[in-house]
Amino acid sequence: MTLYLLLDFGGTKHSAAVWRPGETGWVAHERLISRPDADADYDWQTMMALGRKLLNGRQPAAIGVSFGGPVDFARGMVRLSHHVPGWADFPLQQKLEETFDAPAVVDNDANVAGLGEYQFGAGQGCHSLLYVTVSTGVGGGWVLNGRPWRGWQGLAGEIGHTMVDAQGPLCLCGKRGCVERLASGPYMAADYAAARPDLSTAVTGQTVAELAAQGDPLARQLLQRGAQALGLGLGNAANLLNPQRIILGGGVTKAGELWWQTVRQTVQQLLLPEIEVEISPAALGDDAPLWGAAALAAQLLGGETGWDRDRSGEADLATPGRTLT
Amino acid sequence: MTLYLLLDFGGTKHSAAVWRPGETGWVAHERLISRPDADADYDWQTMMALGRKLLNGRQPAAIGVSFGGPVDFARGMVRLSHHVPGWADFPLQQKLEETFDAPAVVDNDANVAGLGEYQFGAGQGCHSLLYVTVSTGVGGGWVLNGRPWRGWQGLAGEIGHTMVDAQGPLCLCGKRGCVERLASGPYMAADYAAARPDLSTAVTGQTVAELAAQGDPLARQLLQRGAQALGLGLGNAANLLNPQRIILGGGVTKAGELWWQTVRQTVQQLLLPEIEVEISPAALGDDAPLWGAAALAAQLLGGETGWDRDRSGEADLATPGRTLT
Repeated sequence: MTLYLLLDFGGTKHSAAVWRPGETGWVAHERLISRPDADADYDWQTMMALGRKLLNGRQPAAIGVSFGGPVDFARGMVRLSHHVPGWADFPLQQKLEETFDAPAVVDNDANVAGLGEYQFGAGQGCHSLLYVTVSTGVGGGWVLNGRPWRGWQGLAGEIGHTMVDAQGPLCLCGKRGCVERLASGPYMAADYAAARPDLSTAVTGQTVAELAAQGDPLARQLLQRGAQALGLGLGNAANLLNPQRIILGGGVTKAGELWWQTVRQTVQQLLLPEIEVEISPAALGDDAPLWGAAALAAQLLGGETGWDRDRSGEADLATPGRTLT
Repeated sequence: MTLYLLLDFGGTKHSAAVWRPGETGWVAHERLISRPDADADYDWQTMMALGRKLLNGRQPAAIGVSFGGPVDFARGMVRLSHHVPGWADFPLQQKLEETFDAPAVVDNDANVAGLGEYQFGAGQGCHSLLYVTVSTGVGGGWVLNGRPWRGWQGLAGEIGHTMVDAQGPLCLCGKRGCVERLASGPYMAADYAAARPDLSTAVTGQTVAELAAQGDPLARQLLQRGAQALGLGLGNAANLLNPQRIILGGGVTKAGELWWQTVRQTVQQLLLPEIEVEISPAALGDDAPLWGAAALAAQLLGGETGWDRDRSGEADLATPGRTLT
């Protein structure tokens, strides 16, 4: 019985699953919260223990991994983590292959989640998509003609650090008016808290969304400003690449109708008249990276995912028109 | 002897060539200026006459066409021309195939010029590129993994209508602060003329560049503003797609060192620290669309371009790392 081991290294949340190709659920699955003071070594040990527990003595045919940070896909190395120390140049693929005696494949979480949505979620059968997670940060992953587009250095998808307002507030990256600076949850929360020094309670992105839903003018304004910034970034991306679909996931996408409407309207205003793009909510939720890891592992072995509806989708993926070979 | 007929339908300038695969020059080549009152029918007749003259009784194996406007690549149809009336839904591929009894392939000029630079010019051997022409308009074409990326509807590459300044001047497309509104030659000239109602002579993009080189403060300011706008659009594109190279062609790129320096600096400021992109001037000049049409025609027949240095370049084009098949 072919089994894949799938691992999702998040910033603070990790998960793992064992999957049998062709099935729509997991053979085994577990989620855990890491310690606030965790380093790479701690997270590695924790995930190895979790993987062994879920495998329960069974041998995986391949291991697919989503990592929450920049990855050198070609070499299977983590470049770094912005959240957890000790990950710089960590040879994750090699260490997994040694540990489990099976081939492994590692990619960053936005690429992997995009591939997951493409194979199993809101992107099934579509020609090309941009997946964007709007959460603690804003990150993106492309699937073009059925393949992840990683770019020359494996760093494609950085829509969070495209600039949409040269006069905007300063981002941690050093530039002004990045999409992430305006649209991510923690930045919206920080801007709300900075404008309301009278508040004694902590503000999160979710708080801002809830206050906006209750009609709080400042929260509404910040939520709309974030949605507009995201819409400008997405509209620019759609004019540049003409993807069929944009899929939005992450906590901020749960902010409600005002947010979605503002994003959609802003994109529409930015598109050239002839250009069309579908905007859909992500379908796989927190499991998107694990499903993408499943697709990566299956591709690694040259196998199909086993779902007929994916195979029929793939038949449509050629560039429109005659194939130039 | 295999010969290709290559046609470049510009706005006012047309050209045609006959090419033998493997050669670095043309068997025959001619350029002509159309009439200001030309329509599609006039341009079609003129180009057919020119093609027959250059072929001189010889039969082409294939016909490659660059068209200065949106093209439905899959159906070989012109969508429209922004400059010449009568082109809407013109079945250019079919009419060429009937006229010359040979297979034809038609694509828009930015895609074709990008492919030309990739195969024969400043993009040889590179993993991925964005070609941008900065001229009467600002248009772009992608070559990803050795293939033009046309997008879902064949409309990818519209960097001219990505927005870089929400408070910027109004573009003909209805939006504010498009790259084209700030960076194209005619718009820079119009802004110069509007600020100097005392001038009696006509101002062109070239005039602005020449005045800037002579130290005229207004011309310098407009040229720098245009270069900055372009740099912001290119930097956003590089963060989004992580292409190896950006190739810049078109009349405005001859504006001199101030312009190039401003473009390069602006892109550099926008890139995330880990992302690198090479910025190169186009190498093929006005012939880029014809060379790209040559590459298209060769691909149509499943053939090589005949240049060994292209074939060796193509060997490097896989996505870095293991191929997931």
